[in-house]
Amino acid sequence: MKLYFGPVSGNSYKLRVLCALLAVPFEEVAVDLEHGEHRSAAFLRLNPRGEVPVLEDGEVRLWDSAACLVYIARRHGGETWCPADPAGLAEVTQWLALAATELQCGLQYARRGVLRGRWTLGDAERAQAFGRSGLRVLEGRLEGHRWLALDRPTIADIACFAYAETAPEAGVPLDPCPRILAWLERCRALPRWPARPVPRR
Amino acid sequence: MKLYFGPVSGNSYKLRVLCALLAVPFEEVAVDLEHGEHRSAAFLRLNPRGEVPVLEDGEVRLWDSAACLVYIARRHGGETWCPADPAGLAEVTQWLALAATELQCGLQYARRGVLRGRWTLGDAERAQAFGRSGLRVLEGRLEGHRWLALDRPTIADIACFAYAETAPEAGVPLDPCPRILAWLERCRALPRWPARPVPRR
Repeated sequence: MKLYFGPVSGNSYKLRVLCALLAVPFEEVAVDLEHGEHRSAAFLRLNPRGEVPVLEDGEVRLWDSAACLVYIARRHGGETWCPADPAGLAEVTQWLALAATELQCGLQYARRGVLRGRWTLGDAERAQAFGRSGLRVLEGRLEGHRWLALDRPTIADIACFAYAETAPEAGVPLDPCPRILAWLERCRALPRWPARPVPRR
Repeated sequence: MKLYFGPVSGNSYKLRVLCALLAVPFEEVAVDLEHGEHRSAAFLRLNPRGEVPVLEDGEVRLWDSAACLVYIARRHGGETWCPADPAGLAEVTQWLALAATELQCGLQYARRGVLRGRWTLGDAERAQAFGRSGLRVLEGRLEGHRWLALDRPTIADIACFAYAETAPEAGVPLDPCPRILAWLERCRALPRWPARPVPRR
């Protein structure tokens, strides 16, 4: 399996985490986001969205981090990390959706704006408010639950972890969210959970 | 199965479509979005996000349209509308993700802004540009393919249909996208595909 990653991309980090937890080996292809390699014609043939990560495994080619998580979990993780029964799969999907909207389009786009001045969808205030609304849903779920879905670690946790962890860099402090802070620690304590790659300053 | 719908909500419409195609009966509970029922304490206990649709089926309670589509498809549609094999499920998930980000946070949030002056994430220009980037991905995929995933109709098509169809109301005309227009027609021609409910003027 070949994975095209941005060295410090949060969406690539999600796949690093799952592969580490499942001890699945992969070949990493580094995509030079700083020099716009993800916008090149060659890369757009891999992923028309122009984003990392991309997964290739024999005939299978996938873009989007949630799709790649689902593939790796179903292929290598049995029913544990992404079950196939209607209620289980749907419960996991619910959190993948929150990760794609409130956390990605809210927190991550706010973070990119704050750190790099690139505003995909609008101003800081609205993106942060949208991100905070997602964190409220996480905090509520974690009242009385240790994990987001199915009362065990699944790809739901991995998908939501990346941009919840970096919320403070988006200008959204996590101090009002003690349950999220405890859940981030629980995730990090899972065997082989890798720390996120930090950009060189 | 009980489904909480907004009468003209696009995300509720996605579930109407799948239930119609699969001839799955359900009890509809109308949520009065105009008078803010989705922000009431009672509704927030059903869905902490404060949005329709919500699904209840015995012990199962789900929010998020993609999660509900997955549940109904896996429960009532065998492997046809949402398969469980790694590559098939991941390919479907890829389009559910596009529906949640570029189409929902781009096209639908632009449409809500244009029609009702409510800007969830920022200005018209950026939301429309984000939406257009999603349409480009759809248009590219439909070059040489009749359906978004697996070369057959799946919940990927249903998830993307709703806010692609209403792109013009978001200020994003579909004339430059002949393959999307033809695909919308193919979707509408599936047996029992219901027209979207149109708001009273």
